[in-house]
Amino acid sequence: MQKSVTLAMGNGGIENRELIEKIVFRHLKNSFLQNAEDGTVLGDVKNAVFTTDSFTITPLFFKGGDIGKLSVAGACNDLAMMGAKPLFLTLGFIIEEGFGLRDFERIVRSIKKELSINEAFIVAGDTKVVPKGSCDGIYINVSAIGERLREFTQKKIEPNDKILISGDIARHGASIFAGREGIELENEIESDCSSLWVVVKELIESGLNIKALRDATRGGVAAVLNEWAIDRELCFEIEEAKIPLRDEVRGICEILGFDPLILANEGTFVAVVGEEDDEKVLEILRKFNKNAQIIGEVTKEYPKRVLLKSEWGTRRFLDMPSGEILPRIC
Amino acid sequence: MQKSVTLAMGNGGIENRELIEKIVFRHLKNSFLQNAEDGTVLGDVKNAVFTTDSFTITPLFFKGGDIGKLSVAGACNDLAMMGAKPLFLTLGFIIEEGFGLRDFERIVRSIKKELSINEAFIVAGDTKVVPKGSCDGIYINVSAIGERLREFTQKKIEPNDKILISGDIARHGASIFAGREGIELENEIESDCSSLWVVVKELIESGLNIKALRDATRGGVAAVLNEWAIDRELCFEIEEAKIPLRDEVRGICEILGFDPLILANEGTFVAVVGEEDDEKVLEILRKFNKNAQIIGEVTKEYPKRVLLKSEWGTRRFLDMPSGEILPRIC
Repeated sequence: MQKSVTLAMGNGGIENRELIEKIVFRHLKNSFLQNAEDGTVLGDVKNAVFTTDSFTITPLFFKGGDIGKLSVAGACNDLAMMGAKPLFLTLGFIIEEGFGLRDFERIVRSIKKELSINEAFIVAGDTKVVPKGSCDGIYINVSAIGERLREFTQKKIEPNDKILISGDIARHGASIFAGREGIELENEIESDCSSLWVVVKELIESGLNIKALRDATRGGVAAVLNEWAIDRELCFEIEEAKIPLRDEVRGICEILGFDPLILANEGTFVAVVGEEDDEKVLEILRKFNKNAQIIGEVTKEYPKRVLLKSEWGTRRFLDMPSGEILPRIC
Repeated sequence: MQKSVTLAMGNGGIENRELIEKIVFRHLKNSFLQNAEDGTVLGDVKNAVFTTDSFTITPLFFKGGDIGKLSVAGACNDLAMMGAKPLFLTLGFIIEEGFGLRDFERIVRSIKKELSINEAFIVAGDTKVVPKGSCDGIYINVSAIGERLREFTQKKIEPNDKILISGDIARHGASIFAGREGIELENEIESDCSSLWVVVKELIESGLNIKALRDATRGGVAAVLNEWAIDRELCFEIEEAKIPLRDEVRGICEILGFDPLILANEGTFVAVVGEEDDEKVLEILRKFNKNAQIIGEVTKEYPKRVLLKSEWGTRRFLDMPSGEILPRIC
């Protein structure tokens, strides 16, 4: 039996300090954390971008990641999608009494690893412990500040722009669903959970005409395209046959009746690019995921709608997702 | 019956958008929120201070406040204690399926009111919905960025400095405890939950020799003084008779055997001040709370310890709090 988190560890006193020092500081320490008092002094921050994300995923550990990796990658990806380099992160833990300390440490180690990929630091944190039955193990909030190096924004999207996807879709959603339901597959599906800063850094350095990026998390590709279509009052036309999908993901979607376009991704993004640069951007994306693809273009045909064209020439609207889809996916 | 939050409202799709637009944006909208994409562009931030706090308090509504007021006040107070003006806040909601929409709106209204006291803005947010039994109603994370106007820090504390308290102590802890246990008192105890920026602003403008401020939340005054004593390797000597305590709070502490020095406050802080300015600082504090008091001084007598002197001349160490104290106080 591993030792576990007690209510006393959330008391603001001795046990609280011990939990933080022995596990959190041990792995995540840096000069910011060391000098933190009620808050942490960052000094001047240029071109700041600010974001927040809470994670309540179940299961906490899944094929391809865990809640720790997901929290850091998820928050940093939000910054990267805006053209910002992740810099300073805060960690807010809500932990259930009885949660294993070894599991907690495993999560903190994942956080550390993902931070180093983003070259970012945890600069402040907070830990609350709630009684058994008031939380599913652990919830994590990550808030993050980045420095914007390049202005990627949906405001730049115009007709004739090309729509690209950075890799095959729906892997995170399909993986979590299969894991939760105990579905056994010949090839276990691994979540795409990963930090996108590495890719975005190259996109920024390329100087290509990239308009907007967005990671297709909750609500999937369908939610991203619909949000953009509504905001820009433009039509987003995509070709079904061009949407990259692994066989095992297609399989699980067909069996269960899920539309892969609404399933969550956690390391796959949609990019809108000036038509002159679509192939060059694709080339960069393929260095990181060979399944990256140009999937469509922006038009004025049906403003505020997403149009899905099949191989046989039929066309239908792809709606903004609604209903429960898959709760607790992130 | 009020309408309630559904799992679908956490899906990243239509219902999610509706919840945010109809309740959160309706009350909290500003140009930052309106232009937010994956993150929010803040531009250059000077002398930034960054903090995070998660709130899991029960009950959610209490005499003197609610989880919404507490979240904003708590995070902003962390900044104020560092000498920083609160500027930009993020909100991370974790809501239990079935939570009343009217209660949610009441919390959002409290957030709005407390923001205006701090002259601060919500610039980004995140909402997750978890199934019944996976959260006690609602948990809130607030992360906040402020601009540091004056360097209040424990690093400046020296022997002979005076220790002040901004008002009578232990009201938040006593109020929550009484409310939770259904204890009926002649004078119902009201939490001290409040935003300290108003007071701190005057302290900054005074130009007086103020070294450090710290709000005495979880672990109370005892935790603050012990942390400072350990960090500075100095002795913090306080006089028991000078510690302001309301009769009804003293009463509940005596009946239940609580030490008011370890009970949480949410709008009361400890200040360490150069000895030449103690009376002048006291005068400012008393404009906001007539119970403010000079309670002791910093010495070299017992490094890393807090010394409590009784009216009768006896002396004892006040230890760092340990054990469960009062879980879920913030």
